Amino acid sequence: MIRRRGTLFVVSAPSGAGKTTLCREVRHRVPDLAYSVSVTTRAPRPGEVDGVDFHFVDETRFRERLAAGAFAEWAVVHGNLYGTSAAALEGELGRGHDVLLDIDTQGAAQLRARYPEAVLVFIMAPSLAELEQRLRERRSDPEHEIQRRLRRGREEIALWREYHYLIVNRDVKEAVEQLDAIVHAERCRTTRLTVSLDDLEVPN
Amino acid sequence: MIRRRGTLFVVSAPSGAGKTTLCREVRHRVPDLAYSVSVTTRAPRPGEVDGVDFHFVDETRFRERLAAGAFAEWAVVHGNLYGTSAAALEGELGRGHDVLLDIDTQGAAQLRARYPEAVLVFIMAPSLAELEQRLRERRSDPEHEIQRRLRRGREEIALWREYHYLIVNRDVKEAVEQLDAIVHAERCRTTRLTVSLDDLEVPN
Repeated sequence: MIRRRGTLFVVSAPSGAGKTTLCREVRHRVPDLAYSVSVTTRAPRPGEVDGVDFHFVDETRFRERLAAGAFAEWAVVHGNLYGTSAAALEGELGRGHDVLLDIDTQGAAQLRARYPEAVLVFIMAPSLAELEQRLRERRSDPEHEIQRRLRRGREEIALWREYHYLIVNRDVKEAVEQLDAIVHAERCRTTRLTVSLDDLEVPN
Repeated sequence: MIRRRGTLFVVSAPSGAGKTTLCREVRHRVPDLAYSVSVTTRAPRPGEVDGVDFHFVDETRFRERLAAGAFAEWAVVHGNLYGTSAAALEGELGRGHDVLLDIDTQGAAQLRARYPEAVLVFIMAPSLAELEQRLRERRSDPEHEIQRRLRRGREEIALWREYHYLIVNRDVKEAVEQLDAIVHAERCRTTRLTVSLDDLEVPN
């Protein structure tokens, strides 16, 4: 029998790099990958469903849960609070399930400290010009909001060396295959395996 | 621009675990993976072509090249000598090409010492019983030869923790996908990348 503990995959990217699409596609391709629905004070975007895309809460409720130590990581992003339920995450990992979390760079640093065996993946757009174009195409944010996201994007990109893997998202299909490969390769890492191949270990 | 040095992938397995088939399939799927044709004193098996499967040489010639320091690794396996040309290997890596080597555990240990960034993959059969069955099916070796390969297989399997990745070859298709995933994931490793995303690094 070969057993594995659940592995935590943390994916970060500047806003506009295509992280959300990528994570969704990889969840389709790798159905045994659990994920944790983040808690946020951000307003739902059109089409987002409470409990599916995020748990939407108000700031008072978020701060109560934060004070109670309920979050494995939390962060302020573009003025909104985001957090990951420690109980939900540890439940999945404890059951031996791999978990994919889509988390900003602040949250990723907290998760790395808390789970040293976590696998950190950074997603980049091919260039800042491309990032800006994607932000403008995506929705009708005011100019100062786009500029704020770009400024923060530059700060986040500077942290790519803190991650184990880098995916440059030129083409969604190729990027999905790379993220898929990372998940499958990490499942073969000897450091994550507990092998008791009984019949192989019989002395003779 | 993102640049990478060439990565050396070393694949080891006990005789009968399916390593040769696996490596051949992965070379089909990943055509930009170079490989090095080993030098051996072993007699060609039916269908094997000199210069393609191996460079077949006599023991005198092998020992001359060994004395001249021509081998990046060498080993005695089942009474035959095997070696990898250092010049051929370093040529490929220097040109930024990834190289896949199909090497026994003795050679793998030498390569790990010489190339600390090499990626080591161990292939196992699902069980010793399965390994024995595959050895018996494969060709008409005398009983003492099968027993010798099994004994050596047990010794090699004990070394699996020295490798970065473990693939249990239950099903060739699945095992090929895992080896393919390992190659593609390692290509995304931040420690192997030299990034100069010029337009991302413009201060602003």
